[in-house]
Amino acid sequence: MPTSPAATASDIPAPLDLPLGAASTSRVLRTAGALFAGRGLGNVSLELLAEESGTPLDALRAQYPTIESALAVSLAFMNVGLQDAGFKGQRPRGWASFDAFTATLSRGMNTPGLYQLYSDVNVAAVDPKHPAHDWLVQHHDFILEHMRVSIATGIEDGQIRAEADPEELHRQLTVFLLGVVPAWRVLGERFSLEQAFLEFKELMVRRFATPGYLASRAA
Amino acid sequence: MPTSPAATASDIPAPLDLPLGAASTSRVLRTAGALFAGRGLGNVSLELLAEESGTPLDALRAQYPTIESALAVSLAFMNVGLQDAGFKGQRPRGWASFDAFTATLSRGMNTPGLYQLYSDVNVAAVDPKHPAHDWLVQHHDFILEHMRVSIATGIEDGQIRAEADPEELHRQLTVFLLGVVPAWRVLGERFSLEQAFLEFKELMVRRFATPGYLASRAA
Repeated sequence: MPTSPAATASDIPAPLDLPLGAASTSRVLRTAGALFAGRGLGNVSLELLAEESGTPLDALRAQYPTIESALAVSLAFMNVGLQDAGFKGQRPRGWASFDAFTATLSRGMNTPGLYQLYSDVNVAAVDPKHPAHDWLVQHHDFILEHMRVSIATGIEDGQIRAEADPEELHRQLTVFLLGVVPAWRVLGERFSLEQAFLEFKELMVRRFATPGYLASRAA
Repeated sequence: MPTSPAATASDIPAPLDLPLGAASTSRVLRTAGALFAGRGLGNVSLELLAEESGTPLDALRAQYPTIESALAVSLAFMNVGLQDAGFKGQRPRGWASFDAFTATLSRGMNTPGLYQLYSDVNVAAVDPKHPAHDWLVQHHDFILEHMRVSIATGIEDGQIRAEADPEELHRQLTVFLLGVVPAWRVLGERFSLEQAFLEFKELMVRRFATPGYLASRAA
């Protein structure tokens, strides 16, 4: 699936090969993303998607035989859109790269239901037979690669200590991303997603930044 | 429900009031805990619990009309047992208090299925109508109170900086506890629960410890 860092929204899906064509496919996938995010993973049918996207059911079914197949492609589509918006075509260095990631996450947080969907998919798609499993693996490979580049450039620029381990940062970030929605649901009004993320970034800075970076930030 | 920090295992449930009596109740609750942990939240019936605990179904049903009611009491029972084991009747101070919490968590991690159950309950019981909802609220109140005492005593002892916020620590710990099992499932063999927890503790130390504590640790 085309979710590698080099992919752009126009790569997904390859429109010429699809029964619905490019414009209808794009509309179907955007509608699917909104429906999944608004209603949760198990509460969207092909019939509803056909109605809400204004697509004949037969034509929709020719391209997406099951709602799960529409989910898998819709996630890849959404993922690339968020990445494009967050990174704006360039990959920043060091802690600025972390901020670009934060911007991408904030977009996701501010889209109602998207984080719940993300959390649900991350748990359900652990099963290798789930249609979104490939998406999940590539999504985490993308995050890990992003962490590797951030840390390598941060070390080059003297912002991040040389012994920083991208795998450790990836582990803690994965735990954070998967726990933040359940925590929000458990703690309710005590909890702010944005505050939790800013605090998490501060934990990372305190753990991995060079004394020079901390001093320059304080100045 | 008797899950306040002052409760002990012998408080739960009050055996004299119960149709099954103390010994059978204890056996039923231990069996229920093992079954829920082994099979997940939705895969245990009253019939199975009766069979596995060697209790007549009618007698079991007189005390626990639904499997959900058995779950709620079983969680409270398990919770107090883990707390007793972790804290051994006394409440340590500062970072040592955090270590006691780690010991409790490690016991949970090493009990197959227990963390998955914990994660499932934390999400399902957000609904105020869920039978384990009271347990969930009191469980998080207990964690928050534990964090408050740890930080207050750590500040008194010069281990923790005076501006440390127990609510921030609680937020990040809640995210961690709820995300660590899904992360384990997503990352598979890349991921070690114990390593993730040790790394998380190190994040907390770097964020909240005094320079004096960090220096004494390095020495």
